[in-house]
Amino acid sequence: MMKKTRNKIDLVAFDLDDCLFDSTGLSRRARIKGIEAMLKLGLKIDRERAIRILMEIVDEYGSNFSKHYNYFIRRLNQVYEDFDISFNMKYKFISAAVMAYHKEKIESIKLYDDVIPILKDLKEKDIKTAIITDGIPIKQWEKILRLDLDPLIGLVIISDQIGVRKPNPWLFEFCLNEVGVKGEEAIYIGDRIERDIVPANKNHIYSVYIHRGGKYDTYTKRDNLRKYETPNFEIESLDELSNIIDTINKNRE
Amino acid sequence: MMKKTRNKIDLVAFDLDDCLFDSTGLSRRARIKGIEAMLKLGLKIDRERAIRILMEIVDEYGSNFSKHYNYFIRRLNQVYEDFDISFNMKYKFISAAVMAYHKEKIESIKLYDDVIPILKDLKEKDIKTAIITDGIPIKQWEKILRLDLDPLIGLVIISDQIGVRKPNPWLFEFCLNEVGVKGEEAIYIGDRIERDIVPANKNHIYSVYIHRGGKYDTYTKRDNLRKYETPNFEIESLDELSNIIDTINKNRE
Repeated sequence: MMKKTRNKIDLVAFDLDDCLFDSTGLSRRARIKGIEAMLKLGLKIDRERAIRILMEIVDEYGSNFSKHYNYFIRRLNQVYEDFDISFNMKYKFISAAVMAYHKEKIESIKLYDDVIPILKDLKEKDIKTAIITDGIPIKQWEKILRLDLDPLIGLVIISDQIGVRKPNPWLFEFCLNEVGVKGEEAIYIGDRIERDIVPANKNHIYSVYIHRGGKYDTYTKRDNLRKYETPNFEIESLDELSNIIDTINKNRE
Repeated sequence: MMKKTRNKIDLVAFDLDDCLFDSTGLSRRARIKGIEAMLKLGLKIDRERAIRILMEIVDEYGSNFSKHYNYFIRRLNQVYEDFDISFNMKYKFISAAVMAYHKEKIESIKLYDDVIPILKDLKEKDIKTAIITDGIPIKQWEKILRLDLDPLIGLVIISDQIGVRKPNPWLFEFCLNEVGVKGEEAIYIGDRIERDIVPANKNHIYSVYIHRGGKYDTYTKRDNLRKYETPNFEIESLDELSNIIDTINKNRE
């Protein structure tokens, strides 16, 4: 009689931004569309200079700040001697920029090419799926709905919905409890060492570091972090996940 | 030698919402689209009952409140015994509702049919145009840009941009000063007695009350107000404006 193979991995959980879609790239493209909309309405500034100033503001105030374009116009008026944008033009510019930004965000969001194949593969193998992500619940759900991920993912955990943010390992424990699996029966894939790999490791979840996105990690920073925190696996594409699952399950037979 | 006709009317200024486009109707349709999006995702509630509850919330918290759908779900859970929407479904519903609401607002905004003809007519007559509107500057500019009104209107005055709100007559004086005309050389058209007609009259601007929209005025309330504040003209359509201008100019000859 053949020995029954125990399927060790019961859950594969993913980070959302920069793991399932190019969040950083999309935001950057959308921000540039906003600049271009202002140029089109007559704002007199060199395109590259405008992008540089806007990106400074995004860095300083954070990517979730809601007034990047207001501050952009304010900064032109206050800091640079060659600008004097009237208050009437100001709001026209800001409004056009915000409209163009949202249009790009809505129309251009798309999954990385390797997402649908791996989700289908996991479904065939009867492995549960989840998303664990930071962010504002309504904004994160908007992304999930626009990406048509809702029918493909079993459970969505958004940190601000629970009141626990990465890298707090309890967020990952919460997910394990909800699904009803142990850490060693789960895999988590993310693009940031400190926010994804550290809390996965603390819960004895198999941690998979995917080399893309990189909103906060520089390669140098990654290397420094890796000195004291090592992911169990490193991948370039989600296509590599199937092999990882097979490897883990085989060692368990 | 013929006597030169002095063109008395130099400026025609318009209210925006419910004067140039069906703002109240658009908002109502968009809010219903939000309800329908939640029903489509599986919210179990009678459509008419859901609309009634949402409109109560809009009444109570005002139309510019940003959390109508959050409060809708919260109210279902807290007030009605037959609902128990999990926090995960909650944010999915809210997000889908907000997306559908904005989609409708973006895609369905359109000018009343009589707007373009009168603006063309005014341009031919070399009469200046303006919009004087309450509201959040970026939101009002978004409407103006989406309606393609920007190239057709000379001056846009948004109250929150100046820090003076209707019915403060100084807002209308500000407009007259910007354009450089006197009150008796101007016409203002709006759909609300207390916010449009009263401040126009105080500035000796020819006030034109248009019978549409009616976000705040009930007919009864209008009649009460008319007891102490009378518009110079009342119209059903902007088509009637040309005759009004002719009448005023003729009396001036």
